[in-house]
Amino acid sequence: MIRHETLNPPQHIYPIHPWKIIETSFYPRFLAQTETLFSVGNGYLGMRGNFEEGGPVDQSGTFINGFHETWPLVYSEKAYGFAKTGQTMLNVTDGKVLRLYVDEEPFNLSDAFLQLYCRTLDMQSGTLDRELLWETPSGKRVLIETRRMVSFEHCHLAVISYQVTLLNAEASVVISSELIGNRQNQAGVEDPRQARGFQAQVLEPQLWYAKERRLAMSHRTLGSGMGLACCADHIVETDCAFSWHSECREDYGKLVLSVEARPKVPIRLVKFLAYHTAASSPARELCDRAEWTLDQAMRKGLNTLLEEQRRFMADFWRRSDLELEGDPEATSRPLGEIQQAMRWNLFQILQAAARAERTGIPAKGLTGQTYEGHYFWDTEIYVLPFLTYTAPHIARNLLRFRHGMLEQARERARQLNQKGALFPWRTVNGEEASAYYAAGTAQYHINADIIYALRKYVEITDDKALLFNEGAEMLVETARLWADLGFFSQRHGGQFCIDGVTGPDEYNTVVNNNAFTNLMAQENLRFAVQTVRLMHENYPEHYETLVHRTHLDIAEVELWEKAAENMYVPFDEKEGIHLQDDGFLDRKPWDLKKIPRSQFPLLLHFHPLVIYRHQVIKQADVVLAMFLLGNRFTMEQKKRNFEYYDPFTTGDSSLSACIQSILATEIGDTERAMKYARYAILMDLADVGGNVKDGCHIASMGGTWMLVVYGFAGMRDYDGQLSFHPRLPRQFKRLRFPLHYRGKLLEVEITREATVYELREGAELSLVHGEEPLVVRKGEAVRRENP
Amino acid sequence: MIRHETLNPPQHIYPIHPWKIIETSFYPRFLAQTETLFSVGNGYLGMRGNFEEGGPVDQSGTFINGFHETWPLVYSEKAYGFAKTGQTMLNVTDGKVLRLYVDEEPFNLSDAFLQLYCRTLDMQSGTLDRELLWETPSGKRVLIETRRMVSFEHCHLAVISYQVTLLNAEASVVISSELIGNRQNQAGVEDPRQARGFQAQVLEPQLWYAKERRLAMSHRTLGSGMGLACCADHIVETDCAFSWHSECREDYGKLVLSVEARPKVPIRLVKFLAYHTAASSPARELCDRAEWTLDQAMRKGLNTLLEEQRRFMADFWRRSDLELEGDPEATSRPLGEIQQAMRWNLFQILQAAARAERTGIPAKGLTGQTYEGHYFWDTEIYVLPFLTYTAPHIARNLLRFRHGMLEQARERARQLNQKGALFPWRTVNGEEASAYYAAGTAQYHINADIIYALRKYVEITDDKALLFNEGAEMLVETARLWADLGFFSQRHGGQFCIDGVTGPDEYNTVVNNNAFTNLMAQENLRFAVQTVRLMHENYPEHYETLVHRTHLDIAEVELWEKAAENMYVPFDEKEGIHLQDDGFLDRKPWDLKKIPRSQFPLLLHFHPLVIYRHQVIKQADVVLAMFLLGNRFTMEQKKRNFEYYDPFTTGDSSLSACIQSILATEIGDTERAMKYARYAILMDLADVGGNVKDGCHIASMGGTWMLVVYGFAGMRDYDGQLSFHPRLPRQFKRLRFPLHYRGKLLEVEITREATVYELREGAELSLVHGEEPLVVRKGEAVRRENP
Repeated sequence: MIRHETLNPPQHIYPIHPWKIIETSFYPRFLAQTETLFSVGNGYLGMRGNFEEGGPVDQSGTFINGFHETWPLVYSEKAYGFAKTGQTMLNVTDGKVLRLYVDEEPFNLSDAFLQLYCRTLDMQSGTLDRELLWETPSGKRVLIETRRMVSFEHCHLAVISYQVTLLNAEASVVISSELIGNRQNQAGVEDPRQARGFQAQVLEPQLWYAKERRLAMSHRTLGSGMGLACCADHIVETDCAFSWHSECREDYGKLVLSVEARPKVPIRLVKFLAYHTAASSPARELCDRAEWTLDQAMRKGLNTLLEEQRRFMADFWRRSDLELEGDPEATSRPLGEIQQAMRWNLFQILQAAARAERTGIPAKGLTGQTYEGHYFWDTEIYVLPFLTYTAPHIARNLLRFRHGMLEQARERARQLNQKGALFPWRTVNGEEASAYYAAGTAQYHINADIIYALRKYVEITDDKALLFNEGAEMLVETARLWADLGFFSQRHGGQFCIDGVTGPDEYNTVVNNNAFTNLMAQENLRFAVQTVRLMHENYPEHYETLVHRTHLDIAEVELWEKAAENMYVPFDEKEGIHLQDDGFLDRKPWDLKKIPRSQFPLLLHFHPLVIYRHQVIKQADVVLAMFLLGNRFTMEQKKRNFEYYDPFTTGDSSLSACIQSILATEIGDTERAMKYARYAILMDLADVGGNVKDGCHIASMGGTWMLVVYGFAGMRDYDGQLSFHPRLPRQFKRLRFPLHYRGKLLEVEITREATVYELREGAELSLVHGEEPLVVRKGEAVRRENP
Repeated sequence: MIRHETLNPPQHIYPIHPWKIIETSFYPRFLAQTETLFSVGNGYLGMRGNFEEGGPVDQSGTFINGFHETWPLVYSEKAYGFAKTGQTMLNVTDGKVLRLYVDEEPFNLSDAFLQLYCRTLDMQSGTLDRELLWETPSGKRVLIETRRMVSFEHCHLAVISYQVTLLNAEASVVISSELIGNRQNQAGVEDPRQARGFQAQVLEPQLWYAKERRLAMSHRTLGSGMGLACCADHIVETDCAFSWHSECREDYGKLVLSVEARPKVPIRLVKFLAYHTAASSPARELCDRAEWTLDQAMRKGLNTLLEEQRRFMADFWRRSDLELEGDPEATSRPLGEIQQAMRWNLFQILQAAARAERTGIPAKGLTGQTYEGHYFWDTEIYVLPFLTYTAPHIARNLLRFRHGMLEQARERARQLNQKGALFPWRTVNGEEASAYYAAGTAQYHINADIIYALRKYVEITDDKALLFNEGAEMLVETARLWADLGFFSQRHGGQFCIDGVTGPDEYNTVVNNNAFTNLMAQENLRFAVQTVRLMHENYPEHYETLVHRTHLDIAEVELWEKAAENMYVPFDEKEGIHLQDDGFLDRKPWDLKKIPRSQFPLLLHFHPLVIYRHQVIKQADVVLAMFLLGNRFTMEQKKRNFEYYDPFTTGDSSLSACIQSILATEIGDTERAMKYARYAILMDLADVGGNVKDGCHIASMGGTWMLVVYGFAGMRDYDGQLSFHPRLPRQFKRLRFPLHYRGKLLEVEITREATVYELREGAELSLVHGEEPLVVRKGEAVRRENP
């Protein structure tokens, strides 16, 4: 169902630019949104787009991926096996603040008379830049130029350059560069998706000092015992006379620079910030590490760091860019916003994932605390495809991180009275943190999602080392879980049934035989059988290690195979559709058109029992299965299923529109595909869902890459075989993107008439265009009419 | 399934006596259990069987029905419409304590050398008596005789007589009679059935004073704002010289009596205790009321009060006794324990219900804080049958109390996005207090249970006033809820389906078309249709009032009728059984025999998802429907259903065995019926379930009356028509019991050969014996051979 008028998004408040997000005046009304939109980060460290001057502010946020506090989950009515430990990514020491005073008057954006305001997120330089021209009440004109960067090259490093120039007068200028410990953590009150607020201080100061222009501050979390150090150092560049002093207390440090500003003589303060964290809390060592980061950065200097950042970005775009050129003749609406939003989406994924080296990707990246910085299936199903095809080393890190949580997953399976391993629905530290099992722990499909992503990664990269070392162990334990969870049902002719689970759709919970889950479990089991047999026969040493780690008995594989081959997939012959679950058709109809728009998302206005009782869907479920496992469905089934489920789908989840767009494309409904595509692509930049203030929807952003590549370009990779069936919507003239495949780099350019394949790296590559097998060789552009 | 060996209960630790529970020596091991077993109460006020001397003690408990603290229910992950306010019946001011010192040595049961120990709960006098002979280390022999009574006649009053006699020496004797405020509230940690412990003090002292031998203490609850006053006064009776002093602080008051005891001269201290409570907290007025209660009681004096209590008990037994005479030739085991336990069960119901005048009946009566003093469906389905047939005025009070919570039930329906009213699964103050909806709020059948009890009450008492004043309003609102909740399902041929509910069985939650729920809802709707039409046609004034209160449109009734007449009741033709719910047969089989006994109850050892996924039943569900609505099933169906579901039924709920016994009797399996009967009847006195320490299972106790009257005597009252089909198990020679019916009092005596009906009050009564209609007239014993 296409619900929101916002599919025709509200007036675009940011001017269209292919590489930049530009805000040309200060809108207090959009303060919270822009804090998210202008976030910068590198996957390890993230900073919300708060103003340097410390205000106005909605939520000041500085986050480190995986740096979290734990707390006991409480239940007014408890049951056996409920998750025990809550985990919340913390808002850490704030180093963004540089307050400005001119003639002792503070510069305050809220009431300043601004002759110029321009804030720019530059996706080629990888910086957040501002240019402000402030006229003080006494008529002094002050040019403020700032640049903020979280370094991709040096993941612990951020740099802020703050430059002030008096244009028409002398003045006394003070810049106070601060470190603020123990910032407030976001307190979500009524919305279950928000993060937990902590009543008391959770970060205990450990060590703090000022040393010349250097400030240092370290903390320890009280519950999880993690350690954090934040150090700042400063370079002053000016021809004006200046003095400074520094001080640092336990939760507050500052360097105060006082300058006798002369007209047209710039004053620049460059602030280098280093963050280091560790699972335990060696305060002294963490401070040392942060100081070494500062030493190195200051040796390089700002310009070198900026140049590195630009190079990093150039490389990223070379490997990842999606060029989408609109056809002005085909649409009355400009499509530049699509190109801009698309690039911004990819840029945000990069900011969430680039240096996520020992962590997962939080649902909101490092742009907000909503969902508490937890890792969900979002990573494996929505973000890994993009990463696997554009930056496979990041995909590998993320899969290795999952494997690192296998021991906790084994323990969780035991808590759920099951064999094998059960990966948590939501987690930071590997333990299940979902306090509402119906829409959390019951999503057993998480296991299969991880294995699905593993398989795709292995097929696309041919990374056997990961498969045999980490993958195989996960395969054995997840297969064990499925075999133990389900049963061969006499009532279903001996087929393998899986009851009491929740599929992707959280509006139908604890159901029997969720089609998505059963199909994905089948894939999981099959891949386990195939891999274990391969190792058993051809890689005896790897196999021995696997047996040692898992106590595997090769006979187990037979049960997995039997379960896979007899997997029950609910199908209604009368309607000719796959059933989302055994009971879906039996549920009470609900006329969604009669529900006022203000009552969406339903979960905020209806009791779960009411939602679960009705024929209503939060997000693509059968439809998602038809995308992920497209070769298990006929085109006729795809059409019928899509048409059947689409009207029930509220889109209350951000994970839905991108998938619906891909399926709509595949069944030939490009108009609908384009509507869903717009919805997904503009979701955050145009704040279609109304909650971008809480952070970016990273999974949906990954989904937008998929809806272009799997949707418009019709790329498929069943069993690792690349194929394309381009179906460019009429609104576009041209689509161009690169793909990494087994160490090769393919570039695909699609126009309305034809597609051109070019191999930039690698010797040759086989693919299928439409129905035609092709071999593309380096340096040779292969052009084919579109099917 | 009959699971526990304990069906052959452990050695009976209390000697068999038809009217008394006697403990002949002090067993520290049974301390917690006996605190429950020797509880005394009257439905308003309850005291656990703690020793007067203040120890040893497991849980000191003094409870006032409905006197509760509220607190915000917390959820680590919250959703719309979750219950907001927790409610916990509090442990109030302890007036039971009278410490004894002889020659300055405290009397302490734990280490005292006792020549005699006898504690007796006397069910004819309605008192808890003790006789102890203590020899002090110096060889002085001290006879201690105590008697404790919570008055049935004066619900605010308790009396403790404490008598000490030195048998062989002089001594200095001190008795310290105390009032202790702010006793600890029970803290249940891991067991979800336990009560909430409060971290901080919840009772705020308001007013306290000592006045001669009188002590007064009042408190206010911080959250719910309720007021409590407890006053004590004392009479000293002795020929020995004595002195006393009194004092009262905010949470501690005492009267200290010092006596120069002479040999063989008794010293008696009589302590009168008065408790008054109010929804708000007028401390002064509550203390006044408590003082007036004391004034009146002391005017009457101990002996008169004891005599009143004895008369009350005699009247109770005349109206309620079940005489069960075992046949020594038929069984190797004596059956006196059955008679004793049965009477104790009825006595406990009396203690929970007698003066429950503006409240419900807590699940544990006033014997413990487990389930937090909440009212459940237990009252309507398990306890009201006994009360309706033996003390209809108490039944009326309880139904009127339910009606008093209708406004909160309307509000709850709105919170659940439904029309009409939804009574809470568990509550003290009328608001839903269930923090786990799957086994709480989802039990929509609570509505139908209340209406079922209402209908039975009206049929048996012919109390049209209650029906038209309170009943009709509840009927309209509950019928509205059902009509709104369910829907006419195309998939089920247009029949009325009710999805997403939990039936009585809490091991299968949020299911579709729970047979019990649908059948009970059908009865609810039918009774609503019938009553509203009757009022519309014949009682226009009552009808107008009803319309005024409910905005009823007579056209609504048509929908109710259509829903009732088209109610879907799941039935499996192949197995020839009613389905507990649509999906029951599809669930995963579970070999319960392979689960070690230590893993029961399952809910303490398996995650809910695991339990819900399997074919396993906590408690009678279809089987309960076959009892309550026996005329909706054929005998063949009863047999097949019973045999089918019995093996799946763990009996993890105390609400099950009594019902299984009734059905087993009905289908002719008297051996199995007798096994379940023993299990149910001895559940608490023999601690079959292992948790009597937490309080009595009042509902099961009501069930034991049912299993005798509905089971062994085969009484049925479909549509208000009394019938009997006696099936006395071979272990019994004789069964005799009275029944109130429309102002008449029938006495039924069943032996193996025949049944004798006698009318003690009323002119004549029609009934059916086997298949034969009979009219019994006053003074005329009608004897019939058993069918």
